[in-house]
Amino acid sequence: MKIHDISMTIRPEMAVYKNRDAKRPKFVQSAWFDTQGVYETDITFNLHTGTHVDFPLHTLPGGATSDVAKPGDFIGTALVVDCTDVIQAITKADLEHAAIQEDDWVLLKTRNSAVETFDFEFVYLAKDAAEYLVSKRIRGVGIDALGIERNQPNHPTHDALLGNGIYILEGLRLQTIEPKRYSFLGVPLKLAGVEAAPLRAVLLEE
Amino acid sequence: MKIHDISMTIRPEMAVYKNRDAKRPKFVQSAWFDTQGVYETDITFNLHTGTHVDFPLHTLPGGATSDVAKPGDFIGTALVVDCTDVIQAITKADLEHAAIQEDDWVLLKTRNSAVETFDFEFVYLAKDAAEYLVSKRIRGVGIDALGIERNQPNHPTHDALLGNGIYILEGLRLQTIEPKRYSFLGVPLKLAGVEAAPLRAVLLEE
Repeated sequence: MKIHDISMTIRPEMAVYKNRDAKRPKFVQSAWFDTQGVYETDITFNLHTGTHVDFPLHTLPGGATSDVAKPGDFIGTALVVDCTDVIQAITKADLEHAAIQEDDWVLLKTRNSAVETFDFEFVYLAKDAAEYLVSKRIRGVGIDALGIERNQPNHPTHDALLGNGIYILEGLRLQTIEPKRYSFLGVPLKLAGVEAAPLRAVLLEE
Repeated sequence: MKIHDISMTIRPEMAVYKNRDAKRPKFVQSAWFDTQGVYETDITFNLHTGTHVDFPLHTLPGGATSDVAKPGDFIGTALVVDCTDVIQAITKADLEHAAIQEDDWVLLKTRNSAVETFDFEFVYLAKDAAEYLVSKRIRGVGIDALGIERNQPNHPTHDALLGNGIYILEGLRLQTIEPKRYSFLGVPLKLAGVEAAPLRAVLLEE
């Protein structure tokens, strides 16, 4: 079995949304061998750092939080869809020929995976494509950018997905991943009552 | 397939090591619907909060960090061993009759799993038991306490395990778990260059 790690590495100098300093993770040493006999680190980060899942509360007031997510929701099948020719937005037409099955995680591989820095012109998912994915009754959709939409007023892509119980994964790394079907593992950290959670996502190939 | 979540929930009021305030995770809202149109949270926590893995740097100066951990190390088999009768320390004699196999994750179920608060008298793993586990060439050992040893000068249990490439999982929750063999999934968050990392651990039962 081959294991593909599709997660971003969390480090202080990593790419963060719109290069905002407030979004940079902080690592602070908090125990030392000299004094405590051990080495420890405290970390501070925004929950939308690196590879993470968005829950409904992120864009929907009163929406569901991490508390409703079951581990089994994040263990299943993934279809990696080749969208590397898309320049701006992935539309319904870009997805209609993909062999999407009910309960799949649909992972969108785009030109975003080729860059490690934050690209203000990142490829995103258009609302009509989000609505198409809702109609396919998938488990979740993932993209290789730190956002699944880009400056769209009132975030219609998020709302279409989150309002219909579809999880959103952001911050995937898919550059070396062949577009096809895999087993998916990516159970998020067990945080109480929040709008997003970091996770380590891997694909398994028999 | 049945999925058992054996992770602690990370929340501000959770149990932390020796009830130290500095170890309590902090959740701070950092974006609001009124102003930014979304809800976001920043979190601060010590890397030894809740369910986590220790890497060698935690107790061994110059030791290996999270950078050497491969996802495949954390996908495998687990043997949950019943140690619920142990009052103080799990010794070699308590483990010799367990059906431990090479490359197993050995998860120690103790009376710790029955309490949700921090117990200063938590059951821990004695050095001779750690050395026995090293001899069995296991992948890692886990315990249902926030430490795998308790006030032992120079942390010999940690050093015996970490010095021999055995991962240590702390903060498991095993109260409802039947002692037997499972599939194990618990890939840690992908943090660069640190001595520990949080993870979501689950057991799969066919």
